[in-house]
Amino acid sequence: MTSPWNGRFSCFDLVARTADCARTIVYAGDVEIGGDDFVVMAGPCAVESERQLLLTAETVAAAGAQVLRGGAYKPRSSPYSFQGLGLEGLKILRKAREETGLAIVTEVMSEQDVDLVAEYADLLQVGTRSMENYALLEKLGECGRPVLLKRGMTATLEELPRSAQVIALSGNRQIVLCERGIRTFETATRNTLDIAAVPVLKTVSHLPVIVDPSHAAGVRCLVPVLARVAAVAGADGLLVEVHPSPDEAMSDGAQSLTFGGFRGMMGDLQPCLEIRDADRRPVPQRVRPRLVAAGGSE
Amino acid sequence: MTSPWNGRFSCFDLVARTADCARTIVYAGDVEIGGDDFVVMAGPCAVESERQLLLTAETVAAAGAQVLRGGAYKPRSSPYSFQGLGLEGLKILRKAREETGLAIVTEVMSEQDVDLVAEYADLLQVGTRSMENYALLEKLGECGRPVLLKRGMTATLEELPRSAQVIALSGNRQIVLCERGIRTFETATRNTLDIAAVPVLKTVSHLPVIVDPSHAAGVRCLVPVLARVAAVAGADGLLVEVHPSPDEAMSDGAQSLTFGGFRGMMGDLQPCLEIRDADRRPVPQRVRPRLVAAGGSE
Amino acid sequence: MTSPWNGRFSCFDLVARTADCARTIVYAGDVEIGGDDFVVMAGPCAVESERQLLLTAETVAAAGAQVLRGGAYKPRSSPYSFQGLGLEGLKILRKAREETGLAIVTEVMSEQDVDLVAEYADLLQVGTRSMENYALLEKLGECGRPVLLKRGMTATLEELPRSAQVIALSGNRQIVLCERGIRTFETATRNTLDIAAVPVLKTVSHLPVIVDPSHAAGVRCLVPVLARVAAVAGADGLLVEVHPSPDEAMSDGAQSLTFGGFRGMMGDLQPCLEIRDADRRPVPQRVRPRLVAAGGSE
Amino acid sequence: MTSPWNGRFSCFDLVARTADCARTIVYAGDVEIGGDDFVVMAGPCAVESERQLLLTAETVAAAGAQVLRGGAYKPRSSPYSFQGLGLEGLKILRKAREETGLAIVTEVMSEQDVDLVAEYADLLQVGTRSMENYALLEKLGECGRPVLLKRGMTATLEELPRSAQVIALSGNRQIVLCERGIRTFETATRNTLDIAAVPVLKTVSHLPVIVDPSHAAGVRCLVPVLARVAAVAGADGLLVEVHPSPDEAMSDGAQSLTFGGFRGMMGDLQPCLEIRDADRRPVPQRVRPRLVAAGGSE
Repeated sequence: MTSPWNGRFSCFDLVARTADCARTIVYAGDVEIGGDDFVVMAGPCAVESERQLLLTAETVAAAGAQVLRGGAYKPRSSPYSFQGLGLEGLKILRKAREETGLAIVTEVMSEQDVDLVAEYADLLQVGTRSMENYALLEKLGECGRPVLLKRGMTATLEELPRSAQVIALSGNRQIVLCERGIRTFETATRNTLDIAAVPVLKTVSHLPVIVDPSHAAGVRCLVPVLARVAAVAGADGLLVEVHPSPDEAMSDGAQSLTFGGFRGMMGDLQPCLEIRDADRRPVPQRVRPRLVAAGGSE
Repeated sequence: MTSPWNGRFSCFDLVARTADCARTIVYAGDVEIGGDDFVVMAGPCAVESERQLLLTAETVAAAGAQVLRGGAYKPRSSPYSFQGLGLEGLKILRKAREETGLAIVTEVMSEQDVDLVAEYADLLQVGTRSMENYALLEKLGECGRPVLLKRGMTATLEELPRSAQVIALSGNRQIVLCERGIRTFETATRNTLDIAAVPVLKTVSHLPVIVDPSHAAGVRCLVPVLARVAAVAGADGLLVEVHPSPDEAMSDGAQSLTFGGFRGMMGDLQPCLEIRDADRRPVPQRVRPRLVAAGGSE
Repeated sequence: MTSPWNGRFSCFDLVARTADCARTIVYAGDVEIGGDDFVVMAGPCAVESERQLLLTAETVAAAGAQVLRGGAYKPRSSPYSFQGLGLEGLKILRKAREETGLAIVTEVMSEQDVDLVAEYADLLQVGTRSMENYALLEKLGECGRPVLLKRGMTATLEELPRSAQVIALSGNRQIVLCERGIRTFETATRNTLDIAAVPVLKTVSHLPVIVDPSHAAGVRCLVPVLARVAAVAGADGLLVEVHPSPDEAMSDGAQSLTFGGFRGMMGDLQPCLEIRDADRRPVPQRVRPRLVAAGGSE
Repeated sequence: MTSPWNGRFSCFDLVARTADCARTIVYAGDVEIGGDDFVVMAGPCAVESERQLLLTAETVAAAGAQVLRGGAYKPRSSPYSFQGLGLEGLKILRKAREETGLAIVTEVMSEQDVDLVAEYADLLQVGTRSMENYALLEKLGECGRPVLLKRGMTATLEELPRSAQVIALSGNRQIVLCERGIRTFETATRNTLDIAAVPVLKTVSHLPVIVDPSHAAGVRCLVPVLARVAAVAGADGLLVEVHPSPDEAMSDGAQSLTFGGFRGMMGDLQPCLEIRDADRRPVPQRVRPRLVAAGGSE
């Protein structure tokens, strides 16, 4: 693979795209990320209650989502804001999986929580504030679960695969990269979605790349259009915030879609997915053995 | 129109979207920008010779472009770099219009050149470095030609329509806004395409919005995907650099498409345009009287 | 001169620091900028009335300023904000010079105003929005007056001397560079003062470098400390906003010092200037012939 | 305290400056940070060997430093770069303290290392990549040692004290804030030193504020001038990289001072410190009880 970025993007050979391996499939439970399907991961910012999560899970599953997102451990934009339900939240997530068949993605913020979260989740999310938490990355390399690695809000496109490489060096190449907007001078949106990140990352790395339009936008009304843009840019999926009543959400309400908004977004996505699929030429692809969580019960 | 940006975006009532005027059509010659068609403006960064420009004009016209771009007066990234052919360049542009029927867009950098350029061009471009050149903006307000206003490389989405308002206050509301990437810490691309700018600007202003994927990308290989993204985001058109032999271009060669690359881009755009068209609901629209250039012969 | 920036900073040989010419003195009237003295330029953002300007001129002169600033032509952060008194403002500035002996610096925004402003001012200011207005820069190269070139709010330290080179190529090497803060994600201050710009610019160029703490800070209370910092960093002077009653100023009131505040700043600066002077080793220096304004009456 | 930032900076009452507590003294061993003395913390980026560290410790102590810096656990700008000597490094640091009397500051990157590092160090450093590692911050709140909290390279001046508040909420108000440059579009320096951060932080918080000129500059030749600037801006001290032979350093060699360079910097600092001291008016100050490390032997 020659590209304009050859030479600049070094130090991450384990995750670099090569002639032999242009694409990797990551398994979140039974869900294939990076394969033919465009994988939509949806759910509330935070697990707030069983009722809230199950209702959301059923709704997003019915609309075509394959993975349920929901935070049990929350980074706090303020020291006093909601920190998540912790273990109780994980149990609610498991219940939602049992009832809907959705795979579960949830954030892990502390290396000490990795084993516990790995028991409950199919995909462990590294948040934007943790992209360079090397202790956490190394622990995730040993956890036996695939990892969703979000771009730091000020990380370059060279630094994101570098963090993936740290996970890979510790033994785990089941990693999904996520573009979620970067911090710039512009304040009309919460962050600036760097849509070029999708084709650049897919050119330099064999890892799947998804987009989080919710944190990029910061406002609900832009999420559907950014979702469509992501599909056309060649993304492997989305991570999207949905809430039964966003105005009462404990966090990120302004950027969460309503159920109706989510259904609308999924409908509008279809023609974009056809474009994406038509553009997706077969490439050498490595289907890796599925991981089994170290401490997992499955 | 209520939006998350109401109240923040003030001071530009003449270009603000309202219930009565949600969309304006701008006329570059006979070409309608902001109407039903997606308008592709293509051509070299700089007019280098008659042969180079005519060859490019015929090629992009055959592939579906409606407007020919080409710089006769060039901003210089270095004091010693090519500054354009000036009047000779304008004459070559006029000849290309006569031979191909394409409308002409070209940059004007100095208020003193406005009248001259207005005689030759159908659409006068304000470059990214000139977005806050108020003397130039006021002069353009009186020139009798429509204006293509590029976003300053560090201008916010509040400042861009503010500059449009300065032109409008001087008597000219025939203005096209252009997102061309902003300056951020990321260096993998020349600029960071702020794709959310398209829906935000179309929500707050009735002016057409186009995208320049070439200056955002800085590298040829990303231009087609950014072009598709722009169409799906709802843009009214593109401004794209094309050159017969980019490696020999006097400026911006790395980001210029070859003829083959341009044809490929145009073909790939089609399904994205169908999506865009389906999404384009009828809105109150003001068809303004066509301007006649003050000193123009037409 | 070898420095870490050699090789990166090219394309501006006329303003580059060399073994033969490490420092240039620029003459604003009789005031030497870039010589032994630390030159304070102070006054209101805009000339609002004769009374306002004369009162300010006398006050800042008594406190030690050598140059009076005041805008007759104003860039407008809003299309409806105050645009300056124009020619009347220039006449008031001339009167203030006659009464106080202060040299005059004022902004010129349009190439068409250059000759007129050159008749009235000792130093012609290029504002942050005009740093890449090449038509203006070229005209200033021929105007026979020294130029104060402010850094664009998003310009790199490579681009600032590049613009100076454009002026120099047109025949004028009497140029003062001005760091005034850059646009970043931080919003606690209006801009982020890039204090390292002072030693970097003085390492790569022989031109004098001054600092504008007012536009960097955006709030009055930070101006004195940034002024001291500028002196210790090796700056050749300051450009500072002062107003008789800032709360009633037509522009930039929040960042304008009161008369008392200015006197306090000047007093506090003294020990910093001793440090600066002690640190200022003699270097090869070119005392250029003083310019005479082309159309000037003096 | 009223300031232009009142109202914007909320959510951190435990570290906010008040009429009753304008300043806090933090104790790193016997060293008072935030008191009358300007505290210089110096040493290599990484502890590489006993010989390297002891030699550096003796040199910086003789030149006036009160605290020795040195990394035993290193964040890696590349997955393959030097990761530090770990426990062996901590033992070398302890030995250096015994031989020179310098207090020790060293980075802790993982919550699991906090207790161990707290046994060896007097001041625990949170690196720029860890400023929002909440699990680590909470653990540091319970560790019984003072904390040096570096600003995230893209953190606002609102987010830095917010992270300090997380530590304080867990029981530890012995925190030093550190400005180390932010990430911007400018690449002439490694980061852009936001010197206004010093007076802003000291206005809104009672915590001591120091400056790291080494990471801001990225090049050795700018470190002394940025150090002087920091003193004049009112900083409580410096964190500076020094190495016996920077060209052979395993990390950050380009920005490390030589021994001679460090001595020169310390000498040049003296007049700046006199300015700083003269400017330092007595304010209500809380001398907190010294902490005793939970697992510590002292």
